[in-house]
Amino acid sequence: MRTLLVVGIGAGDPDQLTLQAVRALERTDVFFVLDKGPAAGDLTALRREILDRHLGEGTYRLVEAPDPPRDRTPSDDRSTAGRAAYAAAVDDWHARRAALYEAMFLDELDDEGTGAFLVWGDPSLYDSTLRILERVAARGKVAFEHQVIPGISSVQALAAAHRLVLNGIGTPVTITTGRRLAEAGFPPDVDDLVVMLDGDTAFTTLASTSTSTSTVAGVGAGAGADIHIYWGAYLGTDDELLIHGPLPDVAATITRTRADARHRKGWIMDIYLLRRTPRHRHAP
Amino acid sequence: MRTLLVVGIGAGDPDQLTLQAVRALERTDVFFVLDKGPAAGDLTALRREILDRHLGEGTYRLVEAPDPPRDRTPSDDRSTAGRAAYAAAVDDWHARRAALYEAMFLDELDDEGTGAFLVWGDPSLYDSTLRILERVAARGKVAFEHQVIPGISSVQALAAAHRLVLNGIGTPVTITTGRRLAEAGFPPDVDDLVVMLDGDTAFTTLASTSTSTSTVAGVGAGAGADIHIYWGAYLGTDDELLIHGPLPDVAATITRTRADARHRKGWIMDIYLLRRTPRHRHAP
Repeated sequence: MRTLLVVGIGAGDPDQLTLQAVRALERTDVFFVLDKGPAAGDLTALRREILDRHLGEGTYRLVEAPDPPRDRTPSDDRSTAGRAAYAAAVDDWHARRAALYEAMFLDELDDEGTGAFLVWGDPSLYDSTLRILERVAARGKVAFEHQVIPGISSVQALAAAHRLVLNGIGTPVTITTGRRLAEAGFPPDVDDLVVMLDGDTAFTTLASTSTSTSTVAGVGAGAGADIHIYWGAYLGTDDELLIHGPLPDVAATITRTRADARHRKGWIMDIYLLRRTPRHRHAP
Repeated sequence: MRTLLVVGIGAGDPDQLTLQAVRALERTDVFFVLDKGPAAGDLTALRREILDRHLGEGTYRLVEAPDPPRDRTPSDDRSTAGRAAYAAAVDDWHARRAALYEAMFLDELDDEGTGAFLVWGDPSLYDSTLRILERVAARGKVAFEHQVIPGISSVQALAAAHRLVLNGIGTPVTITTGRRLAEAGFPPDVDDLVVMLDGDTAFTTLASTSTSTSTVAGVGAGAGADIHIYWGAYLGTDDELLIHGPLPDVAATITRTRADARHRKGWIMDIYLLRRTPRHRHAP
């Protein structure tokens, strides 16, 4: 039977690979790469650097496939219909990706071969690889078993760079997306919120003082005044950027820094923690 | 100036160490170990195994100190006064630990030396090391800089073992404690809840059908019927235990398995994901 390894390779620093991940690379016959978007070139190069270093240049087989295009049009529509359209678009993209994976496994991997996907961060957080493998299995045309090797996520890389504990003492942490933050605001029942996949600087909606945002965010008048942001981009790489401070003080700086960096490199990957400060937490 | 490294060493499997963590061990002069409780012996042995393997037996310096005892009496009282007493007990314990760290740094570490704490999992999640270092710095008696090296957390080890994506598509994940789950129930605004530090099997409160629990948990009548649990203990070790299924079906099995394992080994470290199933999610 074919084996598929889903290997977390860390948030950008090649030294964030675990020993377990290195062992997984060593027993892999074929590496499947489906990077997409403006970052694809840089990310594929970074994967090759990792493989060159651990396996030796020219010693491994890497299969690149074009990622099926994803319809992102509906992503700004936050009505019920808009959300349904978004879910349908994701579902359709997963289905097309599953068909592509299936073809790759049949064409490129021997019956007893081992293939691997190198996933940025950790395969358990906002990554589609595992969902798509389940779909391939459900299609029933290619038999395989799969294993997951955890990796350092950008959540942890952010915390380490800022030397943060994410949770308060005995209190929860929520990890969410920029889209969800823009839709639902700062959840009322947590003080620590990690935001991933935010292409639209959703944190700026909290820094405003508009009444509607204040209500949704549940932070009262002067919204954002008692929120601290810890932001990081290109974590663990030479381009790493870190900014933190009270949200209203640094929101504009982050937005500007982010736009400049994105313009310069052609892409950006960033993440941030929003923390309600004790002053707010204990305010009447 | 002294340097302190706070190194995440993974959830139990020595191969979960990152290359960055191995480099950190190599540049450390003194390792500080303050394990506590019934697991202390096994955990210290596992740390020594990691150090022996990467640095060579007898080549490194390890300083063990008794962890200050922590008053755990107030932890069952969930009134406002009870919670204040709990916070005060934690604060007192941190203060005593900070005094101990300070003495260790002054006594055991040269002015230019590098010390390290090896933290299970990741230093950013429910670990006190970084908070205590901040306290030591605030006391002002010993100058140091500190760096954090992220590690694979038990959250990721759990997800990898069950081959799970923690989030739904575009939806948030909350990481919380058993204590908080028992107090506040399943938060209404997330479907995926990771529970750490649960010594009292708080998930059993959701599996019951009592009205009050149902209300608190926000899952309606027949509470727990639409919750799936993915449980794991001793993750990444030879003793690893994994159980998953609908909460009402497997809650008793987990409770029994957990009690047996704890009795056999003298300690247990476990973690679980509670997931509201789509059936509930879309129920009227």
